[in-house]
Amino acid sequence: MASHSSAESQRPPTAGSRWVSTRTTVRWGDCDPAGIAFYPHFFEWMDQVSHLLAREMGVSADDMLAPSSIGFPLVGAQAEFLAPARLDDELEIRAWVTGLGRSSLELRHEIVRLGDSEVLLARGRETRVLVQRDGGGEMRARPLTARMRSTLERYAAPGGLSDRRDTAQT
Amino acid sequence: MASHSSAESQRPPTAGSRWVSTRTTVRWGDCDPAGIAFYPHFFEWMDQVSHLLAREMGVSADDMLAPSSIGFPLVGAQAEFLAPARLDDELEIRAWVTGLGRSSLELRHEIVRLGDSEVLLARGRETRVLVQRDGGGEMRARPLTARMRSTLERYAAPGGLSDRRDTAQT
Amino acid sequence: MASHSSAESQRPPTAGSRWVSTRTTVRWGDCDPAGIAFYPHFFEWMDQVSHLLAREMGVSADDMLAPSSIGFPLVGAQAEFLAPARLDDELEIRAWVTGLGRSSLELRHEIVRLGDSEVLLARGRETRVLVQRDGGGEMRARPLTARMRSTLERYAAPGGLSDRRDTAQT
Amino acid sequence: MASHSSAESQRPPTAGSRWVSTRTTVRWGDCDPAGIAFYPHFFEWMDQVSHLLAREMGVSADDMLAPSSIGFPLVGAQAEFLAPARLDDELEIRAWVTGLGRSSLELRHEIVRLGDSEVLLARGRETRVLVQRDGGGEMRARPLTARMRSTLERYAAPGGLSDRRDTAQT
Repeated sequence: MASHSSAESQRPPTAGSRWVSTRTTVRWGDCDPAGIAFYPHFFEWMDQVSHLLAREMGVSADDMLAPSSIGFPLVGAQAEFLAPARLDDELEIRAWVTGLGRSSLELRHEIVRLGDSEVLLARGRETRVLVQRDGGGEMRARPLTARMRSTLERYAAPGGLSDRRDTAQT
Repeated sequence: MASHSSAESQRPPTAGSRWVSTRTTVRWGDCDPAGIAFYPHFFEWMDQVSHLLAREMGVSADDMLAPSSIGFPLVGAQAEFLAPARLDDELEIRAWVTGLGRSSLELRHEIVRLGDSEVLLARGRETRVLVQRDGGGEMRARPLTARMRSTLERYAAPGGLSDRRDTAQT
Repeated sequence: MASHSSAESQRPPTAGSRWVSTRTTVRWGDCDPAGIAFYPHFFEWMDQVSHLLAREMGVSADDMLAPSSIGFPLVGAQAEFLAPARLDDELEIRAWVTGLGRSSLELRHEIVRLGDSEVLLARGRETRVLVQRDGGGEMRARPLTARMRSTLERYAAPGGLSDRRDTAQT
Repeated sequence: MASHSSAESQRPPTAGSRWVSTRTTVRWGDCDPAGIAFYPHFFEWMDQVSHLLAREMGVSADDMLAPSSIGFPLVGAQAEFLAPARLDDELEIRAWVTGLGRSSLELRHEIVRLGDSEVLLARGRETRVLVQRDGGGEMRARPLTARMRSTLERYAAPGGLSDRRDTAQT
């Protein structure tokens, strides 16, 4: 639930970068009749990291609720599943920022099983856009502030940030 | 997702009464590694019936959202589980009103598996209280309106309604 | 929860094709503090369609449970979100088959809000692989049977099926 | 996620007793449009504690999966809700054993918000029964073993354990 420097990891793909992360234990209720985590839960876990990132960007829990109603709804999300998560597995969900637009941000994620040696279970991506409710109650895209951008840049993926050209959603 | 007269049921405990109900199919993601529905989902299904009842009481989806923020939060809930719900089971969740207070209502529920013969899987109870956000943003108990009361009385359980004396929660 | 011919739809992208679909109502518990459906639920709804497809492929609920343990775990999933789903919205989730490999299948989905005119809320994709538990308890990829393939071909997307070359996951 | 002696707590009702507990943070996806945790999640959190207890009783995650399929399904569950749980709240869910039968156990729970001073948000109860799949695939009640009983007695509620007479479910 904190950020880590890469010194803590032996995994080369992320060497030299910082990530924002959370941990979770796979619960009985997360698992399906095949005895493995039901796949939408991977997206719940990825979502949780984005909230930690929002807090670091200066957006509090209260800011996200009515009436201020700042949010980061999804424009797109994806995941590749490499190995199943099982009951009682201790997972860490890590995220890096891969792209920034005027209002939008792109994250990529790794979900790893912790233990004597880490196992990469899934990779994810989310594209989100900063919105806030306007006077008429409509959600509108808003430009990321300087503080938000500098927080996001701290978690830039090893390959650096790409510029996004925000289109339809802004 | 509609109300039914008792003529549709062969089950004596509810004879002579009307209920409000919804149907659901037990999904893969509702089931746990034992291959049966994970128990908190029974409460999700019971919750869903209370929203149908709210609509009949004249509380729309919009009324329940900010800024009007009318709601029926829980004071208590319980369930007895008689038989498991399994993947693909077609369920009906039925509710009756068993008590009314100034701001509070008590519901009891039956969750039945539909099919050639109905099987009662669980019985439930919920106690809820009508609240609305006040000017300062705090949720406050509000008296049930005459329209709400007449709707609730239509779904009175066979034994009739008991008077609740609302205390701490109002 | 059944399949529909395209005659029922006015939406050109899917004209001339059949889809497999299910319907759901957006529930209170599906919605987040922004008052819209929390995004992982879109993947739950997409998952539900794949189970309807499995039934049509001859894989029963019992077949999916231990000890036979046939399943279609995910290799990848993605979604684009075009408009939010709101409390009480009636949704239809439609799926077409876009690719077949020896053991794998690719689906694409449309999640539409029903009403006087349909609104496309999200597009999705899933890649799944047929597996079955072997004698040692390990899940192993299995070739799709002739019956499975003919069912899947009935729901081919308008552009036709692409051949997938199954690699790591088989 | 561990057990605590009462020395760690200032709260008199549980003084002199040991409990088994887990912690969770209230996530965005746990919260409903009223901005508070959707009530079935309280039961998910209570369920999670029972799994920690099962591990202490010597029932591993693998034991709970097919083919051994040991489980503790619910006979009944209830909760009283005293105050809402909000986004980002740090919660501790504590359980004590209040009754033991041949195959059954009764737990009571407190869900508290951690912080400078603890706030009791909810009280819960669960009645569970030990089951195992027999040769024919049916789940059957099984007597609690001596090891299970001694673990459960360690977490006896302050008032002591009541004897349960197991009836229908065994």
